[in-house]
Amino acid sequence: MLGSTHGTLTTDSRRTRVLACGERSGTVVHGRPAGAGDLDVSGRALHAEVPDLDRFFRPGSVAVIGASDTEGRPNTGVTRQLADWAARVGARLHPVHPGRPAVFGIPCSPSVADLPEQVDVAVVLVADPLPVIEELAEAKARFAVVFASGFAETGTAGAAAQRRLAEAVARSGMRLLGPNTNLNAFEHFREDLDGPSIALITQSGHQGRPLFALQELGIRVSHWAPTGNEADLETADFLSYFAGRPEVGAVAAYVEGIRNGRSFLLAADRAARRGLPVVAVKVGRTEAGARTAATHTGKLTGADAVVDAALRQYGVIRVDGLDELQDTAALLARARPPRADGVVVYAISGGTGAHVADLAAEAGLRLPALSEERQAELHQWIPGYLSVANPVDNGGHPVGDARGRKIIDAILADPDVGVLICPVTGPFPPLSDRLVRDLVDAAEETDKLVCVVWGSPVGTEPAYREVLLGSSRVATFRTVANCLTAVRAHLDHHRFATGYRSPFDDAPRTPSPSFRKAAELMRPGEQLSEHAAKQLLRAYGIRVPREQLVTSAAAAVRAAGLVGYPVVMKASGARIAHKTELGLVKIGLTSASQVRDAYRELTDIARHEGVALDGVLVCQMVEQGVEMVVGVTHDELFGPTVTVGLGGVLVEVLRDTAVRVPPFGEEQARDMVAELRGRALLGGVRGRPPADVDALVEVVLRVQRMALELEGDLAELDINPLMVLPQGQGAVALDVLAVCSPGAQHPPQQP
Amino acid sequence: MLGSTHGTLTTDSRRTRVLACGERSGTVVHGRPAGAGDLDVSGRALHAEVPDLDRFFRPGSVAVIGASDTEGRPNTGVTRQLADWAARVGARLHPVHPGRPAVFGIPCSPSVADLPEQVDVAVVLVADPLPVIEELAEAKARFAVVFASGFAETGTAGAAAQRRLAEAVARSGMRLLGPNTNLNAFEHFREDLDGPSIALITQSGHQGRPLFALQELGIRVSHWAPTGNEADLETADFLSYFAGRPEVGAVAAYVEGIRNGRSFLLAADRAARRGLPVVAVKVGRTEAGARTAATHTGKLTGADAVVDAALRQYGVIRVDGLDELQDTAALLARARPPRADGVVVYAISGGTGAHVADLAAEAGLRLPALSEERQAELHQWIPGYLSVANPVDNGGHPVGDARGRKIIDAILADPDVGVLICPVTGPFPPLSDRLVRDLVDAAEETDKLVCVVWGSPVGTEPAYREVLLGSSRVATFRTVANCLTAVRAHLDHHRFATGYRSPFDDAPRTPSPSFRKAAELMRPGEQLSEHAAKQLLRAYGIRVPREQLVTSAAAAVRAAGLVGYPVVMKASGARIAHKTELGLVKIGLTSASQVRDAYRELTDIARHEGVALDGVLVCQMVEQGVEMVVGVTHDELFGPTVTVGLGGVLVEVLRDTAVRVPPFGEEQARDMVAELRGRALLGGVRGRPPADVDALVEVVLRVQRMALELEGDLAELDINPLMVLPQGQGAVALDVLAVCSPGAQHPPQQP
Repeated sequence: MLGSTHGTLTTDSRRTRVLACGERSGTVVHGRPAGAGDLDVSGRALHAEVPDLDRFFRPGSVAVIGASDTEGRPNTGVTRQLADWAARVGARLHPVHPGRPAVFGIPCSPSVADLPEQVDVAVVLVADPLPVIEELAEAKARFAVVFASGFAETGTAGAAAQRRLAEAVARSGMRLLGPNTNLNAFEHFREDLDGPSIALITQSGHQGRPLFALQELGIRVSHWAPTGNEADLETADFLSYFAGRPEVGAVAAYVEGIRNGRSFLLAADRAARRGLPVVAVKVGRTEAGARTAATHTGKLTGADAVVDAALRQYGVIRVDGLDELQDTAALLARARPPRADGVVVYAISGGTGAHVADLAAEAGLRLPALSEERQAELHQWIPGYLSVANPVDNGGHPVGDARGRKIIDAILADPDVGVLICPVTGPFPPLSDRLVRDLVDAAEETDKLVCVVWGSPVGTEPAYREVLLGSSRVATFRTVANCLTAVRAHLDHHRFATGYRSPFDDAPRTPSPSFRKAAELMRPGEQLSEHAAKQLLRAYGIRVPREQLVTSAAAAVRAAGLVGYPVVMKASGARIAHKTELGLVKIGLTSASQVRDAYRELTDIARHEGVALDGVLVCQMVEQGVEMVVGVTHDELFGPTVTVGLGGVLVEVLRDTAVRVPPFGEEQARDMVAELRGRALLGGVRGRPPADVDALVEVVLRVQRMALELEGDLAELDINPLMVLPQGQGAVALDVLAVCSPGAQHPPQQP
Repeated sequence: MLGSTHGTLTTDSRRTRVLACGERSGTVVHGRPAGAGDLDVSGRALHAEVPDLDRFFRPGSVAVIGASDTEGRPNTGVTRQLADWAARVGARLHPVHPGRPAVFGIPCSPSVADLPEQVDVAVVLVADPLPVIEELAEAKARFAVVFASGFAETGTAGAAAQRRLAEAVARSGMRLLGPNTNLNAFEHFREDLDGPSIALITQSGHQGRPLFALQELGIRVSHWAPTGNEADLETADFLSYFAGRPEVGAVAAYVEGIRNGRSFLLAADRAARRGLPVVAVKVGRTEAGARTAATHTGKLTGADAVVDAALRQYGVIRVDGLDELQDTAALLARARPPRADGVVVYAISGGTGAHVADLAAEAGLRLPALSEERQAELHQWIPGYLSVANPVDNGGHPVGDARGRKIIDAILADPDVGVLICPVTGPFPPLSDRLVRDLVDAAEETDKLVCVVWGSPVGTEPAYREVLLGSSRVATFRTVANCLTAVRAHLDHHRFATGYRSPFDDAPRTPSPSFRKAAELMRPGEQLSEHAAKQLLRAYGIRVPREQLVTSAAAAVRAAGLVGYPVVMKASGARIAHKTELGLVKIGLTSASQVRDAYRELTDIARHEGVALDGVLVCQMVEQGVEMVVGVTHDELFGPTVTVGLGGVLVEVLRDTAVRVPPFGEEQARDMVAELRGRALLGGVRGRPPADVDALVEVVLRVQRMALELEGDLAELDINPLMVLPQGQGAVALDVLAVCSPGAQHPPQQP
């Protein structure tokens, strides 16, 4: 379980599968399976379920259970805030309390059953919410919000209480936010700010606070979902909903634990289909980050690589700090689609320009040199000895007069320029006030992105607070790093969104012909012998060496003649690991006598080591390729994942691997190979021919298919090495380890 | 030449060497050689020359050449600022202008020769400064500051003009700041701030502006050296000087180009010996960053790795952004030495704590779990279901009363805790005001480091501006990332400073006995044959395989008998590259007939390829080791550098190498190995024995010695592979490439 300080009970993807197949479990953890209906071959949903949250965010009626107006009681402040909020947005407020006739002058119902109408949102402030939740479900409230803490975030007993809460909700049509949440959804959102907004989803209210404060800098925030323990409504639900809201320009999310991997991916897919940028902090880069989640340690670092890959597959922009989250979400919400990906750095100092250009290039941005013509134009206003190629250094003085604006306009007019970044290291009002005014004016008249980095650490200067923050067209940053992160995210997002094709559209829905052959090879709870594992690969069209399994020296010699010299001989049997270390592999055998000797030696070693053999494999010897690994592992959050990496010592020492969560298409498989640090090995080094990357990609895709179809049966697959031959010659799995799941059984659908 | 927008003319280290030997060149670029006197075996200085800059920063008399009080003229503003500054610090001001009797009421001298006294600082505002500089030198002014731009930063003609300026200064005892500099050294420094200060060195004035503004946040800044083009006084001079100033707590530097590599290292060494932290932005991480420096492209990325290593060798903390420079320098200047390296994250929200702890662990900080006893103590005040192991989550409420302070004190009392980091994500005055007040009070009574991250993007809140910025004991940050960077730098600095031993103290001063043998092998401008290159290694005690150079098949067979089968045979001759690709290497020869065939084949190929041979090497075959590379390359800024890396395909594909600038000691050589990503290969993988790392380190140190003694003769050395055998068995250089410098000649000192 991936825990969190907010007690999110993560759901194993296989549980979803069971639910998706219609078996509503008595111990159901969440309210609804992710988008029942259209399912893939592994039994998982293919579309996000989108809850209708209109009435949650804009309710007509709100009940407060446990309302109070007694000064000094904690519930009083909450009740007052809700009353103010209801008055502001025109919702009817219904306090509920057994002993009060009225609260803040509003008539009070003694119990939920006595409420005067079916309520849209019921806010539950009592310490033991379970009975109230049951009453609310009975009364057909649409949404309940549970404040109480002391649930899954506190340990086993709390987790059990949370499950009871979830079960009560699951039996009804009501949806639940919380427990361990708060009033952030009903804050005072500014109505006077224009343009696309940021919608917030934060598992922790405190972590959303600085994002909400962006409104004080003129940035519109339209929604805030503090999801807390996510006993029912989860990050994915809000993300799916926001993806359909026209006013939302970007979603900013603070995520501790992901409750259901598939639901999250489907929600992210929905946002990606609609081109809605999603920026997220996801805790769990290190073990220390998960220490407060006492239920889970040790495995997080590995799992985080999977989370990281999953986010990238759906274009979710992962950032580390809340300041980056603010700055990136603000830019992505408000900036128009880029007209070009060329970035120009413009500064009143050559030093500043060089420094920022250096960091921008390091951040992966493209800084094109401006054309000779453009440079000549700029030199009308900028002294000839200053460089205006990019960065553009104006030397300072031109900023003070009409030249300043002309320079900015000329840069923005360049078709290769999509973004102008102007760092202002310190306020020198005669220059900097004029400069930022010109930038603000120019930004009003262009559809290109104008960014200013206000470098002064003070931040009380009028040029910053009034002119820059007063503009909704200039993106203003306080650090160069955050500006570059945001600009990079902006360009990456639009590149991603433009080319996005949902992998769920192409996900296999029915088993392939390979499946029946493969299913017969499964041995629940066992590691297959090398020979059987290779048959599994063969079933999915993955090439293995010519080989024969033999049980005598004489048969070995005959087999060698058939597969062709030189041969490799290996001990074969279930549960043999570390064959090479034990001396159970003999390579480069060139004669019948060598084969006979090898057979004897292998069987002797096996006997001596106590290893049970089903025989000895006599295999074609394959050289002249690049050794890779391709494998399947089971992630507790996302189910089967596919990994590709450099083989041999490299994978052990450098862990140079790339992972993806199925379903994914060919492009992602190619990206996996491209992101390996040692990818140059495949291009041919030291005069070797380039390797057959197409064949490698094909193996990755076939392994994905196998992972999906055999989900629940195949616990782990490790092709190591996969020998990738020179271009046009394919790839051959020289060895493979396959482990069947303990409770392996064939999936529900049969071909 | 490493250029910069500030036209720093970098000095090749070999030029320094010539100068250091007393040959003052007619084309001298800088005023003085780096610390003439005690020299190392390569003829380089071993101690920083420390200019006396007291009178520069606190002059008794200041002349302004080109002074003006006519409104609207650029020099008028400068003159006024200098007059104000002189009045404030009690310096006598002497305007100089041929046509004015007085400026701002101060009597004016018509020329430099008419000045009423020998001046400490002469500020030259005229467009053509050379004649004035000559007059000032004549008048024995101590320091001149030249504002004019249009020198080396503009191209070849400007660079020539700058050289004339430097020569005029070099002939005198006067020192020069500039050209292309400004008045930053004479700004209005606040006198009311206490404690250790930051001293600034910035090649660009604009880039120093936000650092200077730190004073508005209550952080003391005592000096600012805007070094501009560094025709004479350079970053190293100011760094050496600041290292002797008791009030300086940290140096913050913005560096575009380093003028003289050795001078810079000696200055950094001086700071390191005194434990003075130095934080620097060094431009040039990418080619784009150097584009404005039109004279140099392409090679910077490689050279930057050398700069990066050199900075680390002397404990200089390199950061990327000016905001990091500010935050890190401010912390290092003011924080007391750490009492422990344990970091505790303390937050009013479990989510915030988990998030910051995650980032802190990722940043390499140690977050110890607090002891059971300490946790029990904290649970007196914090509800039992909240985790207080680290991060410490107080749940919010305890902050509002007396418990808040007790919690902070209890954490700080823990002997394993050196640093407390408290992120405050947003202002909620009832809690956050009290929290920051308690933190400020607690910080007054502890010698441990208390850091607050004020997460609100607004930054106008009183708790931030008045309480936090009003404290000189709490280190306040606006982003978690900058806090972690600064804390990490603080802990690293003290660890470094405590263990620092200057490598210059142990640098070789006279050639070793190996030198004479080695010098005889040098062939100016040529690549040595493999055989000769191996003799070079042997001269320095680096083991090579048993081998014989033969010129007939019969001799080859005899040689094989002597070195012992199996053998390797290779073509040997000057200028043979890519032997393996050409088929000029035969391995694993086990019999006389194989040796005879191999001899014929090698000589055939050589003839066919037109390769001149001096013979064929018959070598002992060495297996069972880890292939590494060790080499020497010449860096234009720092001279010879030593590289170690993983060998074979790895070095080509992954460029997994580490570099150091001599002189360095054994510890640095071990660090080089430790920083290789593939270092685990040396520890033994797949059942292989651990490799002899001691022998590898010894080879690195011997190669360093060779690099220093043969500087000027040996252009490049590349041992590839160096086979590092199992522990206790040493390391053997199987192949080596050695290229002599074109103008190679023996260094001045002979043994």
